Amino acid sequence: MQIIKHPSRDSWKELLKRPQMNNETLFSSVQSVLDNVRVNGDKAVLSYTEQFDGVSLSALEVSKDEITEALSKIDPQLKQAIEMARRNIWKFHSEQQFETKEIQTSPGVVCWQKAIAIEKVGLYIPGGNAPLFSTVLMLGIPASIAECKEIILCTPPDKEGKVHPAVLYAAQVAGVHRIFKIGGTQAIAAMAYGTESVPKVYKIFGPGNQYVTAAKQLVSLKDVAIDMPAGPSEVEVLADESAHPSFVAADLLSQAEHGVDSQSILITVSEKLIEQVQEEILHQLETLPKAEFVRRSLEHSKLILVRNLEEAVEMTNEYAPEHLIIATRYYRGVAENIINAGSVFLGNFTPESAGDYASGTNHTLPTNGYAKAYSGVNLDSFVRKVTFQEISREGLTNLSNAIILMAENEELQAHSNAVKLRLSEEQEN
Amino acid sequence: MQIIKHPSRDSWKELLKRPQMNNETLFSSVQSVLDNVRVNGDKAVLSYTEQFDGVSLSALEVSKDEITEALSKIDPQLKQAIEMARRNIWKFHSEQQFETKEIQTSPGVVCWQKAIAIEKVGLYIPGGNAPLFSTVLMLGIPASIAECKEIILCTPPDKEGKVHPAVLYAAQVAGVHRIFKIGGTQAIAAMAYGTESVPKVYKIFGPGNQYVTAAKQLVSLKDVAIDMPAGPSEVEVLADESAHPSFVAADLLSQAEHGVDSQSILITVSEKLIEQVQEEILHQLETLPKAEFVRRSLEHSKLILVRNLEEAVEMTNEYAPEHLIIATRYYRGVAENIINAGSVFLGNFTPESAGDYASGTNHTLPTNGYAKAYSGVNLDSFVRKVTFQEISREGLTNLSNAIILMAENEELQAHSNAVKLRLSEEQEN
Repeated sequence: MQIIKHPSRDSWKELLKRPQMNNETLFSSVQSVLDNVRVNGDKAVLSYTEQFDGVSLSALEVSKDEITEALSKIDPQLKQAIEMARRNIWKFHSEQQFETKEIQTSPGVVCWQKAIAIEKVGLYIPGGNAPLFSTVLMLGIPASIAECKEIILCTPPDKEGKVHPAVLYAAQVAGVHRIFKIGGTQAIAAMAYGTESVPKVYKIFGPGNQYVTAAKQLVSLKDVAIDMPAGPSEVEVLADESAHPSFVAADLLSQAEHGVDSQSILITVSEKLIEQVQEEILHQLETLPKAEFVRRSLEHSKLILVRNLEEAVEMTNEYAPEHLIIATRYYRGVAENIINAGSVFLGNFTPESAGDYASGTNHTLPTNGYAKAYSGVNLDSFVRKVTFQEISREGLTNLSNAIILMAENEELQAHSNAVKLRLSEEQEN
Repeated sequence: MQIIKHPSRDSWKELLKRPQMNNETLFSSVQSVLDNVRVNGDKAVLSYTEQFDGVSLSALEVSKDEITEALSKIDPQLKQAIEMARRNIWKFHSEQQFETKEIQTSPGVVCWQKAIAIEKVGLYIPGGNAPLFSTVLMLGIPASIAECKEIILCTPPDKEGKVHPAVLYAAQVAGVHRIFKIGGTQAIAAMAYGTESVPKVYKIFGPGNQYVTAAKQLVSLKDVAIDMPAGPSEVEVLADESAHPSFVAADLLSQAEHGVDSQSILITVSEKLIEQVQEEILHQLETLPKAEFVRRSLEHSKLILVRNLEEAVEMTNEYAPEHLIIATRYYRGVAENIINAGSVFLGNFTPESAGDYASGTNHTLPTNGYAKAYSGVNLDSFVRKVTFQEISREGLTNLSNAIILMAENEELQAHSNAVKLRLSEEQEN
């Protein structure tokens, strides 16, 4: 951990810098996998699966029998936990439903937006040691609420060619329609282009390692939309002397256990808190099973002392953290001034892990400073707002002078004609 | 024009194919311009401006005097037209304001979304023969409604180093804060990285040629968000025998005059309409100043006869047009079934040019089939929806079992600790 006290304004940029992501160096190798899958479909996917996942599959799609078998293996208590999370996520995202209002912008001119689900979406769930079934919920539930017609999921198989039961269970709960045992770049390629087994989708969601991220970026240049660029996960705690050192330490450690490139930052006005948090971290580290790994991740974590809360807020907005925990006495007032963050957690009893799993908010959030321009995944991510308009003859008459003058000033005569013609002819509406 | 009658289902994909965009071939030359501006700032921008726009500028920013001078040159009638457009665009986009609702997802767990403007946005307006002042309104007005703190605009200067007065006027009307005389790739680079004169922005909007599009795509890989990928403009008219051939012809010609790569498509159930539209097009072409140019553009326009309206709707959803005009007797019913389109125009008195200029809807829309995954520009494009949550001790107690079980099943012990610790300590809230 690095302790930085009263950093000068002109050092902020350097101080708040993320570890550089160098996806570009991966682009050419990733591109060749994409091209191979585009041309050779399932055959290429199966061959990469053998090469990267070490298993030779007879079918890419998870069968009904496999799902039934997996469902029987889930601990009833975990089922209950997932059910509580599902209910809250469903509730929060359902409230995001868009209601169409027809607006008469001028007499006889009626315009409206309609939210229409993206027909085909693909969710990517990474493999690795732990099954990320919570992310299945976070992506699948809003897709189901939006009523996407085809929701598919790709996740790498294990060495036995199986998908973790908790992932299969969460997929059923979330309303995913089809599941494929495909990981990495080949999964992104299969969803972007379609293969014999895998339908092409219009938008791809989900986290992944640097190969998956590079693949998502490359396919987004031409073939398919993506949720957002991904980077290592990060948390900032903004605290004053009212914060509990043990809670702050636990939150910083939560982030650190995600990966060695995760960032945990404390920005505080209390020098005492920094000392206490340091002690607490060392103390809590002892109990963690992944202590060695977390210790490495903590190497680039920073505890920063600033002069006052205004400066803390300014620095936060400059950093634009993915997760922001505000542990100050008057946290609502501080929150009012937050401009750049992915998701904000208020007060001493609102740990990030609540939002990671069960409070109802989404945990797929912009990292790496992208919170300055991107929202986290929400119901909007699964729909498009299409505009409609209906104009009466009277309405068009009202607009006609404006349209004709503007079109002719832009040297677009046919645009002007389309109005003139309609109004010159004598006819019924 | 190509006439296609009753195409078989398996020929649709080929039939509806867009002209291939090959931005990738431009990527390396565009990248070198981006890199040069990133490193050398204004100096590089000024040098490209001399090279590509043929003018040596002493300052990149448009001065107050230049704006005052330009404003005095605008025809009062054009001012009135722009004012009508402004009012309608403002009205339609204002109604898109998001209202925060606090949702109690479970007892003691309160979550909400808040729409926060993107602080710094950059608008790009291409140069060329005609000044695209309408696009200034379409991008600047929603940015102003969102209350973006810094709204800048780049547009190439003419040979005299000036910006067209109508663009400067529209920028004032729309609430743009600063205007720079920079075009092409160097404009995108300046806004993505910032230079001595140009502030770095977080999201770039606006149309452009293939260089601008390639530049936007490249900077979006790492440095900044963009509105959407752009391609040549397109219109589809979906019509039955109730359509007026002269109106349909005028709408197809409106699109054709945008560029030689524009697409105009008619999908209809009426064979007679196809004949009449063909005749009308030839007739109306005679009066157009850009007839020769429009004729070339019409070469890849298609008039397609299908069996019934269901098939017309299916083909439309497969094509996913940027603009869709529905000229059928019962157009509201047909519109209900449209899934993929950027903006939809209903009935005989709703030409695309109304939405292009003055009805209030936005004209920055997804082309090239991107309507399957992207919305057009709207107020959402200028904000992020940030989630907030506040949980009481009681609320966290309710969630605790779910969080702890799920975290431990994902092997994230510290996530679980962050909850356990908070609930184990005896303390005041």
